[in-house]
Amino acid sequence: MTRNGGVESPSHRLRIHPHDTPHFHSTVSEHKLRRFNYFIFVFRLAAFCFSLSAAIFMIATKSDSTRWFDFGAFRFVVAANGIVALYSLFEMVASAWEISRGSTIFPEFFQVWFDFGHDQAFAYMLVSANSTGTEMARQLRDIGTCDAFCVQSGIAVALGFAGFLFLMMSSLLSGFRVVCFIIKGSRIHV
Amino acid sequence: MTRNGGVESPSHRLRIHPHDTPHFHSTVSEHKLRRFNYFIFVFRLAAFCFSLSAAIFMIATKSDSTRWFDFGAFRFVVAANGIVALYSLFEMVASAWEISRGSTIFPEFFQVWFDFGHDQAFAYMLVSANSTGTEMARQLRDIGTCDAFCVQSGIAVALGFAGFLFLMMSSLLSGFRVVCFIIKGSRIHV
Repeated sequence: MTRNGGVESPSHRLRIHPHDTPHFHSTVSEHKLRRFNYFIFVFRLAAFCFSLSAAIFMIATKSDSTRWFDFGAFRFVVAANGIVALYSLFEMVASAWEISRGSTIFPEFFQVWFDFGHDQAFAYMLVSANSTGTEMARQLRDIGTCDAFCVQSGIAVALGFAGFLFLMMSSLLSGFRVVCFIIKGSRIHV
Repeated sequence: MTRNGGVESPSHRLRIHPHDTPHFHSTVSEHKLRRFNYFIFVFRLAAFCFSLSAAIFMIATKSDSTRWFDFGAFRFVVAANGIVALYSLFEMVASAWEISRGSTIFPEFFQVWFDFGHDQAFAYMLVSANSTGTEMARQLRDIGTCDAFCVQSGIAVALGFAGFLFLMMSSLLSGFRVVCFIIKGSRIHV
């Protein structure tokens, strides 16, 4: 317009406006995304620590006559917590990658669905395993001879439940990202 | 404009446009919302049927010497399935209300969070109860005397897991509604 006739109209000023707005939005969203990713990272870290300690604690549990692998319920607890610990470790790396580079490891579509699907499935698996372990530990106590084995398996199950809590919270956050992706075509919510 | 000078400018036609767009959007979204609500209603109905039958089946289970309330695990199964059946009944009414009247029973903000929170909590509770019941039923079978009591409690737990599946799917849908509400300020996603 200025080239054609040198007219500095209000509409010209208005047309500049849209260039500013996306820039402003993208800084805000980058800031929000960063904070969101820090939250996810912390939850993953906590889930990793708790589920790993649950698995190790259960494996280390032994008495003279009984071992953890004699009980199907305790094998389930060790397996579920071990799987969740491995998965959380991978997700910690993915989260750190996203914080440092600003992009996901896998393509965005695949990543958000991968995270959410695994979070959901593993959260239900973990709560199932820990409930089974609780029932087993309760029965050992009810028999009357609650020795070190019985106490330690109870602690291992409690650690597993703490791991579940953090995995559940991660699953809420990754569910939020999936719906953002469905609605807006991007995992980033401004 | 036409009143003031009778000018039929292009900008006038442009200004009419926005009036059409929301109308068009709202019909599409109404249609989608209706289909979405039908899905929720069907899932609620299925969750209600399965969890009610699980509770009834477990209560009806008895043999000469043992009853279901002799086992903590089976009491948990009956309680959890009973609670979920009641909750699903209420949610069926809420869903039918929404389909017929187009508005939620409670204010929208409260309703979406109420649904999602209870879905999540009850889904985890149900999977926990059913896992505990499975472990108990498995132990009864391992003892060697798997009579009618043991078989029937196994069936009750399986029905409970079917109820859980539908509750989990409702929880996904109500989670979607919550995020829609957070992002767009309305439970309706166009």
